[in-house]
Amino acid sequence: MSNDRNISAALQDQLPTFEPGHVWLVGAGPGDPGLLTLHAANALSQADVVVYDALVNDECLKLAAPDAVLEYAGKRGGKPSPKQRDISLKLVDYARDGKRVLRLKGGDPFVFGRGGEEALTLVENEVPFRIVPGITAGIGGLAYAGIAVTHRETNHNVTFLTGHDAGGIVPDAIDWASIAKGSPVIVMYMAMKHIAPITERLIAEGRKHDEPLAFVCNAATEHQQVLETTLGNAARDVENSGLKPPAIVVVGEVVRLRAGLDWKGALEQGRVLSGDPLGVRTRDKSA
Amino acid sequence: MSNDRNISAALQDQLPTFEPGHVWLVGAGPGDPGLLTLHAANALSQADVVVYDALVNDECLKLAAPDAVLEYAGKRGGKPSPKQRDISLKLVDYARDGKRVLRLKGGDPFVFGRGGEEALTLVENEVPFRIVPGITAGIGGLAYAGIAVTHRETNHNVTFLTGHDAGGIVPDAIDWASIAKGSPVIVMYMAMKHIAPITERLIAEGRKHDEPLAFVCNAATEHQQVLETTLGNAARDVENSGLKPPAIVVVGEVVRLRAGLDWKGALEQGRVLSGDPLGVRTRDKSA
Repeated sequence: MSNDRNISAALQDQLPTFEPGHVWLVGAGPGDPGLLTLHAANALSQADVVVYDALVNDECLKLAAPDAVLEYAGKRGGKPSPKQRDISLKLVDYARDGKRVLRLKGGDPFVFGRGGEEALTLVENEVPFRIVPGITAGIGGLAYAGIAVTHRETNHNVTFLTGHDAGGIVPDAIDWASIAKGSPVIVMYMAMKHIAPITERLIAEGRKHDEPLAFVCNAATEHQQVLETTLGNAARDVENSGLKPPAIVVVGEVVRLRAGLDWKGALEQGRVLSGDPLGVRTRDKSA
Repeated sequence: MSNDRNISAALQDQLPTFEPGHVWLVGAGPGDPGLLTLHAANALSQADVVVYDALVNDECLKLAAPDAVLEYAGKRGGKPSPKQRDISLKLVDYARDGKRVLRLKGGDPFVFGRGGEEALTLVENEVPFRIVPGITAGIGGLAYAGIAVTHRETNHNVTFLTGHDAGGIVPDAIDWASIAKGSPVIVMYMAMKHIAPITERLIAEGRKHDEPLAFVCNAATEHQQVLETTLGNAARDVENSGLKPPAIVVVGEVVRLRAGLDWKGALEQGRVLSGDPLGVRTRDKSA
């Protein structure tokens, strides 16, 4: 690769120095290491310890310094996993040891990532910290599946929700009726396991059985898989597909944009795209 | 800066080559050039033409190759600006000329960024394209103000909406009643101009007068300004403040997290943070 593609040299001197005893809470994005931010790459290059979770793609960890300690602190439904409080206190301990501590989380630390809780434990213990946002899978992962979360012809708002709460079940705290009524596009994190009760609930609250729904599994990784179905068939289809979490689930007309916006399918498999995936122009002409 | 901080060398060979005649629609993030993705920096280093909009920080453009043509295609409320269709067709023309065309948009191209429309024009004209997601200001910009859009103690869902529609007014297409009822946290783009009718509407639909609301202007830039107020006082306070767009407006208890999570204020101005900004621990103890 030629030197004229030294993509970060122009900026590198402006990126912050990672001070010993500091913790940086950093989002790694949905998977593709190319979706790491320059701040995240800069953090990886300087960290003494990287405490990473299950949703961080291994490819991202290759940017860590050769002598960095890489510590897995994964949490994944159904498997034994460290307690949130223990992870936070571990960050405190490393910082007090004078380490440069990188807490690397999949997606964005503040989007259903518990970054706020970890940061507040740092504050409580007077550990200085920095937040580095990342690209959340509910936006960037869907873009890798050719789905835009907003599109002027379909929606002026979008709702993101989590299908798990502290107890690991569908949150009672969510006002499903209002979301069904008010959110043309619903993006769901950690919802695959409970997709049957969730889709039944949305239909009971007035959403249509044949409304488009997609599962995007392992978004923006080489293992990405997309299942397009409907609200009514989602639970059956995903069970038959054998697909497994992690997945983002998206409900709404924007799923149909994939016929026009699946740039990955076009570049990698020669998929022929439609310039009118919603049938808007056809409709306008016949009107 | 020492060589051991060559943050992208490990990855650079894996990043894609920008082929002549292709268009890449790339999100530049909320402002801080450190929030550019590696893909975005890679795109900037190879592009022949960069067509950028008003929300792209000039600092990001410094990563473009020295001989790249930088073309402004800004759209900003109230000023004459190129038509969306004209911008899209310009991308087509450049691509047909065999240029490597980088369309650089503030934030994320698919979050109220009209990226889908531009991409569909490319499809219509058989121009190959790639989408590179960016960090949206409604998440990453708020993180720079110390506000987490989700926090387990406050919300299991969050709604993003735009305060402008195609006509430039508050969208009638939005079901304000359902959003007021179902979304504990509401993040609004392009809403500053119409903040009076929007906040009146939310209060009329049942949200509390004293609910926390913040404006984050020029998020994640050196000109970032944050105004913390309430739903009831927002219109008056922002007028008195003299603050101008671009701004993200956020409504909900998460605004109070800023007292604990304002890492920028702590690092840059020595702000003393609270480990219990919501008063949860105090409340638990007194219960």
